[in-house]
Amino acid sequence: MPEVICSKDNKKIKDVVKLINFSKYRTKKGLFVIDGLRICLDAVKSNVDICEFIYTSKSRVKNEDAFKEISILANSQYEVSEDIMKYLSSTVNPQGFICVCKMLDNNINIDKINNRGKFIGLENVQDPSNVGAIIRTAEALGIDGIIASLDCCDIYNPKVIRTSMGAIFRIPILYCNDMILEIEKMKRLNFNVYASVPNCRALSIKDISFNNSSFVLIGNEGNGLSIEVIKSSHHKINIPMFGKADSLSASMAAGIIMWEMVNSK
Amino acid sequence: MPEVICSKDNKKIKDVVKLINFSKYRTKKGLFVIDGLRICLDAVKSNVDICEFIYTSKSRVKNEDAFKEISILANSQYEVSEDIMKYLSSTVNPQGFICVCKMLDNNINIDKINNRGKFIGLENVQDPSNVGAIIRTAEALGIDGIIASLDCCDIYNPKVIRTSMGAIFRIPILYCNDMILEIEKMKRLNFNVYASVPNCRALSIKDISFNNSSFVLIGNEGNGLSIEVIKSSHHKINIPMFGKADSLSASMAAGIIMWEMVNSK
Repeated sequence: MPEVICSKDNKKIKDVVKLINFSKYRTKKGLFVIDGLRICLDAVKSNVDICEFIYTSKSRVKNEDAFKEISILANSQYEVSEDIMKYLSSTVNPQGFICVCKMLDNNINIDKINNRGKFIGLENVQDPSNVGAIIRTAEALGIDGIIASLDCCDIYNPKVIRTSMGAIFRIPILYCNDMILEIEKMKRLNFNVYASVPNCRALSIKDISFNNSSFVLIGNEGNGLSIEVIKSSHHKINIPMFGKADSLSASMAAGIIMWEMVNSK
Repeated sequence: MPEVICSKDNKKIKDVVKLINFSKYRTKKGLFVIDGLRICLDAVKSNVDICEFIYTSKSRVKNEDAFKEISILANSQYEVSEDIMKYLSSTVNPQGFICVCKMLDNNINIDKINNRGKFIGLENVQDPSNVGAIIRTAEALGIDGIIASLDCCDIYNPKVIRTSMGAIFRIPILYCNDMILEIEKMKRLNFNVYASVPNCRALSIKDISFNNSSFVLIGNEGNGLSIEVIKSSHHKINIPMFGKADSLSASMAAGIIMWEMVNSK
């Protein structure tokens, strides 16, 4: 019988809490935490490196097949009490499965892009729900990769992972220090670079033929893209709107742009 | 000097808490609560009937013009302590402006639709963020109205209102007891009725010309549309996807469908 962890003061538990809450600690350790039955199974399917598997006795019995599947791949595993699971989980009704995983090796190698593909760039997108929704939508629609500035919300933020529904395991994502530099690289690779702006005098996305070398940039929820990024891009583009609302949400705007990128003729 | 309310036991405060938390109480009273500077000003601009205006002394001084604007239109007003504002507000940093409003008179009168328009129907959409995002997007894209089944999340849920960014004040919404009945009415008005389904053998939304008498139905986040609604519709439609994700989120799928409804040729 494995030992059951019942104390919040347990070193392992304290460490998991730090990984959940602190982006810098995640980066330092090269680890992140996923929470829930489905996302843990998604990680298994996507060959994510699972370091630690944390479960409750109840969840083990209830989901025996899933337990076995995750258990085989995990480097180590810990049974915890229901109270500890509630303490660790960010959901109201924890499913009793948490994994500590090694950060993904899904960086886009821009040098290998080879002039082809449809990519989006995120500059300073802050809300974890937006970043998660954009990742989920990008993957579902078949976008080839995401280039995100370092001031975007961390993709290993638990809320990003949850909202992405496991899509972070499957789509290439590059974090970059300097978006202008990446834009220049993409331009040298003959990509058409588009800056999305809330300006109805910009090109309507309906009138653009996004060819198979397209890179579209999306900016911060409140302030949009920086002037530098807009200036570095080839074109300013806009989603035509008719209502009185200021705008679509950042993730909805990104979703509609990606839909047009993938489907425009 | 107006009296400053400092106690959670105050009858007025207790009543506002009930309005925030209980859909049935909202319906019984015909009232709902909005929270935040921008949404309160939105309500003023949209001629929403403001019954009570609740503010703190700090917010009144900080936003004098907004205070006056709301104050003039409110039937009555109450200054509350910072602690009470924090108690009432669902945000971490309350902006110090809350209004109790009369429910909107923005019902779609189907008998007056007169065969024209682009409408969406929501059946059993549960998540308040999804309902709010769909309302926001529908208004921004210029959809003519929303018909929602009574088992959808209440549009006066504080999270729906917040996510809709005030769009609930501006777009006609009809709650209906019986969606099948509404579908039959729309059909008699010569609307084309489409059921969106996660089935790639259904018609692709890319191949449909949504004319100016289109009604598209969107279903529950987990289970989709009911068989009855699908059967009552003229066509089954689908968003073609390429990724490995199960699907787009309900609000993103709705957003892309509405985008195509408004822009298809």
